[in-house]
Amino acid sequence: MFDPVEKLKEYIRQPSVSADPAYAEGMKGARELVGGLLREIGLTVEYVPTPGHPVIVAKRDGDPKWPHVIIYGHYDVQPPDPLDLWTTPPFEPVERDGRLWGRGTADNKGPLMAHIAGVGRLLESDPQLPLRLTFVVEGEEEVGSKHFKDFLREHRSKLAGADFVFLSDTGIPNENQMVITVGLRGMVCFEIELSNARMDLHSGMNGGVLLNPIQGLAELCASLHTPDGRVNIPGFYADVIEVEQWERDQLVELGLKEKDYAEFLGIERFHTPPGFTPFEAIRFLPTLEFNGFGGGYQGEGSKTVIPSKARVKISCRLVANQTPEKMKPIIFQAIRDRAPQGLKLKITDQHDAMPYVVIPPDRSNTPKDQPAVLARAFRATETAVTEVWGKAPLYLREGGSVGLIADLKKELNLDAIMLGLFLPEDNLHAPNESFKLSLLHKGIETVQRTLRAVARG
Amino acid sequence: MFDPVEKLKEYIRQPSVSADPAYAEGMKGARELVGGLLREIGLTVEYVPTPGHPVIVAKRDGDPKWPHVIIYGHYDVQPPDPLDLWTTPPFEPVERDGRLWGRGTADNKGPLMAHIAGVGRLLESDPQLPLRLTFVVEGEEEVGSKHFKDFLREHRSKLAGADFVFLSDTGIPNENQMVITVGLRGMVCFEIELSNARMDLHSGMNGGVLLNPIQGLAELCASLHTPDGRVNIPGFYADVIEVEQWERDQLVELGLKEKDYAEFLGIERFHTPPGFTPFEAIRFLPTLEFNGFGGGYQGEGSKTVIPSKARVKISCRLVANQTPEKMKPIIFQAIRDRAPQGLKLKITDQHDAMPYVVIPPDRSNTPKDQPAVLARAFRATETAVTEVWGKAPLYLREGGSVGLIADLKKELNLDAIMLGLFLPEDNLHAPNESFKLSLLHKGIETVQRTLRAVARG
Repeated sequence: MFDPVEKLKEYIRQPSVSADPAYAEGMKGARELVGGLLREIGLTVEYVPTPGHPVIVAKRDGDPKWPHVIIYGHYDVQPPDPLDLWTTPPFEPVERDGRLWGRGTADNKGPLMAHIAGVGRLLESDPQLPLRLTFVVEGEEEVGSKHFKDFLREHRSKLAGADFVFLSDTGIPNENQMVITVGLRGMVCFEIELSNARMDLHSGMNGGVLLNPIQGLAELCASLHTPDGRVNIPGFYADVIEVEQWERDQLVELGLKEKDYAEFLGIERFHTPPGFTPFEAIRFLPTLEFNGFGGGYQGEGSKTVIPSKARVKISCRLVANQTPEKMKPIIFQAIRDRAPQGLKLKITDQHDAMPYVVIPPDRSNTPKDQPAVLARAFRATETAVTEVWGKAPLYLREGGSVGLIADLKKELNLDAIMLGLFLPEDNLHAPNESFKLSLLHKGIETVQRTLRAVARG
Repeated sequence: MFDPVEKLKEYIRQPSVSADPAYAEGMKGARELVGGLLREIGLTVEYVPTPGHPVIVAKRDGDPKWPHVIIYGHYDVQPPDPLDLWTTPPFEPVERDGRLWGRGTADNKGPLMAHIAGVGRLLESDPQLPLRLTFVVEGEEEVGSKHFKDFLREHRSKLAGADFVFLSDTGIPNENQMVITVGLRGMVCFEIELSNARMDLHSGMNGGVLLNPIQGLAELCASLHTPDGRVNIPGFYADVIEVEQWERDQLVELGLKEKDYAEFLGIERFHTPPGFTPFEAIRFLPTLEFNGFGGGYQGEGSKTVIPSKARVKISCRLVANQTPEKMKPIIFQAIRDRAPQGLKLKITDQHDAMPYVVIPPDRSNTPKDQPAVLARAFRATETAVTEVWGKAPLYLREGGSVGLIADLKKELNLDAIMLGLFLPEDNLHAPNESFKLSLLHKGIETVQRTLRAVARG
């Protein structure tokens, strides 16, 4: 089989920035490189068009009684700017200190390579393996997977009968501690605009006679939290499920130190709701965060203006059992109730994502019915990780949102086994991204062992 | 004497934009045109250099026992942008509908022309007039008169023995109702910055564990007013003097309608402290206004970031008897007391201006000692206005701040008679500025009559 490190270097040389049309050639190059590799390991490859970048779908068919695993990845990368902060050029891969440096090494080219090479080795050593496989490698993850849900709906038949999704697009705290991500927060994003006078006004000629929209919006925003750090909206926490002890225990086992985290953030103190450590709050609680506030003059010096409007961008993270459909009316109603009288209020609904959670077998006190293949896959992954790393993985929810995981659940009722492979120091989305090559090799080994066990039990 | 309308057209053709070095020629042209006119009417002219644009100082000396009047004006204008909104080019004066159109016609070239031509006619008809005059025409009013205070300090001797300042750089509500401005609000401008984490954070990976600076700043801002519209800072109103009944009466006589004002602003309701109409609040009360608030992402759509900092620009207008020196510590202390613990607070003091008030003679219940020439000049102005307009002027304070008036008071202890000449519809600082020519002619007549009476009693 091909050399995964050399192929990864070739892959990095394809500048596949999905956000910028100037990189169309790089997108095509990356797509065809992945398609070529998947063909090389024996799959039939198809590039499925979307209104944006095509999705690579590669299949190994077989007996319908065989387990069917979908492996997800994405071939697009973040823009490389600011270029002057890179030590070596982003699309010229360099091996140094046991790492490969370059844009996309960790997100998601390296981890995807672990899956492709892992499957390649497995099929090479066991050509009769009773396992159906479908790689789904999209080209728009870095621009919000905007056509992925439609792709799932329109090409449902291509993914029919799948048992679960296997992927590596999440992180681990350090190279010795593997984590399987079992939950992601959902999201509701919206913007509030308050406006008053028809135009910006002179603060001398009109100051003191009307409610300044910045003031109105500041007062509205100030009403949305309690001093102890909770969101101050009736019903905001109503659907949040009680955290089980095993989940808190996993976090304790992770061994993060609050002091280290505060130092990393550069903050003097945490501000979490009572009863939750910061590490718990990120994972188990919904939030309401202000992502941007703008109104009036923001340049150098001063300008004595009363702006006609002010805007705030808000995102709420949701946790398991909450839904955007139920939360949005609750949130928007509180805003409407509290908007100052006399000002014009506009709420712009932007986008949202479902939260996601999967309970690994043998963990919860109240296990849910789970498909046999999924449960077997979880156990196989745990065994493989334990063998390769010499230590069992932790099962952790994460604070971020990955819309496509929720989409796969919603559209195809598929759960995901998210095998983390990148590290905090890998600089995802930032200059000098890199990926640790020992994790590539261990990842290949883990994918091989896991899928063999899924197929052969 | 010269034709004031034709000379005003020539003056408008000189694009004297002080803010933009590209207009240096226009500044020189305007300056020399004014200097030439002042020479033509018999004054000795000097261009006094400053670190910015020179100040024109033109004198008519005489017996030290004669009254000495300083006439203030400025030869610079606002930038003309946006150019595409002008009906006719800003620096090509056009006479239409009894108005002269062009940048600077109303602010301040037309009103200054009324003073130059008024003095010209007066000296032509009465060459032996026992009156000393000093024109002080600066070139940086539109950029904050930034070197004017130093000019006053360094050239104190040129202005020695002056009795009062006479100028027209304020407005009137309509062409039939003259107003003499007797008060201006002062100002304190500053910026507050709150910061927390060392960098912008991902709202998924870190949301819910630290106090978002936008939230902290919104809560701080929300604490600065009471629901009834007053500023919620201890001592904020302590030095504000009780408004006298004659001042409220003048406003009633002005006859402004709240409904019209609300319609003009495009607002649903006013928001003034109890006991004050909007027209009173603008003139008699200090304010705390938010001029700009910025933090986080403000572009299109959403970005799930927790910004590391947020900033707000605030200006407080001050009224008679308040001083920036006394108010700033009170305001800054309240901000320091209320800034959320754990966030880093930075207050940047930007600039300030003293409030100004002069009590016209025969008005106040508690008249202050006033120099005889000033009192005579007030009476002379009132008489002249009443004769020319057929109606007495109103004495009103205004909401805006004109730093140079406060500077003249502070540096030279000079009061000002501010004879309003521009109208609300003159579009100062905006496209399609114009000046009503009947007001130019009436202004010339009023200046003549006023100064004759000041000189001859």
